[in-house]
Amino acid sequence: MHSAPQGPGRGHGRGQGRRAGARGAAAGREVLANPASTRVSRVAGLARKNVRARYSRFLVEGPQAVREAVRHASDRVLDVYITEASQDRFSEIWEEALAAGLYSHLVSERVMAAMSTGSQGVLAVVAMDESTGSEALTSALEGAALVAVLTEAQDPGNAGAMIRAADAAGADAVVLVRGSVDATSPKVVRSTAGSLFHLPVVTDAALDDVVAALHGAGMTVLAADARGDLDLFGADSLLEAPTAWLLGNEAHGLSPEALSRADAVVSIPVYGRAESLNVAAAAAVCLYASARAQR
Amino acid sequence: MHSAPQGPGRGHGRGQGRRAGARGAAAGREVLANPASTRVSRVAGLARKNVRARYSRFLVEGPQAVREAVRHASDRVLDVYITEASQDRFSEIWEEALAAGLYSHLVSERVMAAMSTGSQGVLAVVAMDESTGSEALTSALEGAALVAVLTEAQDPGNAGAMIRAADAAGADAVVLVRGSVDATSPKVVRSTAGSLFHLPVVTDAALDDVVAALHGAGMTVLAADARGDLDLFGADSLLEAPTAWLLGNEAHGLSPEALSRADAVVSIPVYGRAESLNVAAAAAVCLYASARAQR
Repeated sequence: MHSAPQGPGRGHGRGQGRRAGARGAAAGREVLANPASTRVSRVAGLARKNVRARYSRFLVEGPQAVREAVRHASDRVLDVYITEASQDRFSEIWEEALAAGLYSHLVSERVMAAMSTGSQGVLAVVAMDESTGSEALTSALEGAALVAVLTEAQDPGNAGAMIRAADAAGADAVVLVRGSVDATSPKVVRSTAGSLFHLPVVTDAALDDVVAALHGAGMTVLAADARGDLDLFGADSLLEAPTAWLLGNEAHGLSPEALSRADAVVSIPVYGRAESLNVAAAAAVCLYASARAQR
Repeated sequence: MHSAPQGPGRGHGRGQGRRAGARGAAAGREVLANPASTRVSRVAGLARKNVRARYSRFLVEGPQAVREAVRHASDRVLDVYITEASQDRFSEIWEEALAAGLYSHLVSERVMAAMSTGSQGVLAVVAMDESTGSEALTSALEGAALVAVLTEAQDPGNAGAMIRAADAAGADAVVLVRGSVDATSPKVVRSTAGSLFHLPVVTDAALDDVVAALHGAGMTVLAADARGDLDLFGADSLLEAPTAWLLGNEAHGLSPEALSRADAVVSIPVYGRAESLNVAAAAAVCLYASARAQR
């Protein structure tokens, strides 16, 4: 696998031949053109969860997510790949990657297609950060005023949209409880539209540990659920305090366990005939109700 | 194709052989078991847009959506299909379909799988209603206080989630501008979780006609866009009036045309580093801000 050294300055002194990356004018730069190369199959392998876990790195696809990774998590970006055809279109990303001293590679269309089907011409390989364990949890929650807890989000698009909504609403952290979808799967990463690199995302946490840590950080734990006895829009005095939202599964909502751990169960009022909202839409409405009350 | 007569009472006098449906005790009921039958291929064909348009009917998959169709649009339900294995699990749907006098068919697992991959054991074929043209538009907007306008929603999951959010927020109608995803595609229908049958959904409307009709109905037309000069949470006096929200495309937001037609452009404040919200999440936040201000 890649063995790029960490930190600024990496990418120097390795500019030989096919594996050349990093700084340098685009003109005359070599293009990775062999879709059967080891490098290509290693990058493509990151579509699989066990490969990601084994090498502690994941794929970031598409201009928006790659730009945000380069901009906000450059110390974790191991490689940037861009097709020749996309170089002009995404010149901002390319320039920023070069300026940050990142290994940046021009690749042929065929190489890009072999690496990823969702890249839109630009791709990055990013190292996972230390996002599990009680230390990561405690550190993410320190001084937090608003936190989203995904208790069993299974749909990658919804999970990504929830991380994005938490970011937009100014949340301080997102926690994924064990059993949720893998936050580094390509579809989740794409759906976060870069928000994965904007705020701490703690993963694989046990529900009881999360609730204990939230209480330890002085936060009120609210469950977002249609069965709640509090109306979201009548709960401003509750929402003004530091708040964590427990958010459920797209099909069956929150588990009885999660409901029982919450300090209060809050419902979005339904004025029409729908039973409930899509879980990502519900997350956005709840998180913004908190943000509005807190400001 | 099916030629089920409309209205209550249909389903009687046709209880012969394989094509039997409608009323009758489950015991002794024949089971459609031939996946190669004409009926099965005709139902399966409804996965394709041109077939849906040609026969003016569409597929409704899964227990939630079928239940809502049976409950709220039974005059348009042409057939209900349920597997033997699902009959007990979804007995409520089965009983309601029989009570409504709907053609209701038991099918084998293989027949269900040949008809649809997303049925979870229960499926309905539903006639499209008259949802296009100026008359449908005028009728849907009459007396409306809150309307969602999908100007170019392309992702079926997002479009469905927006229709569902409009329903939940108590909107009076949803309008899909020409160029949006087909509202009767299986994935949109599934994503609405039944909301498609809860409120008028007008399709294939020209933007100018929609805006003229909204103004004709006395509504303020607001564009939801990150480039707005009004903050959603500081616009309550605007939101109290009858309001239509123009909602954009998941990738590039609202078109310049749509922005120029709006009476005001309103932004959801972003407190973190995200550029914007997922379009379905944004729709829910905007629609609920209106619902809250109007109540």
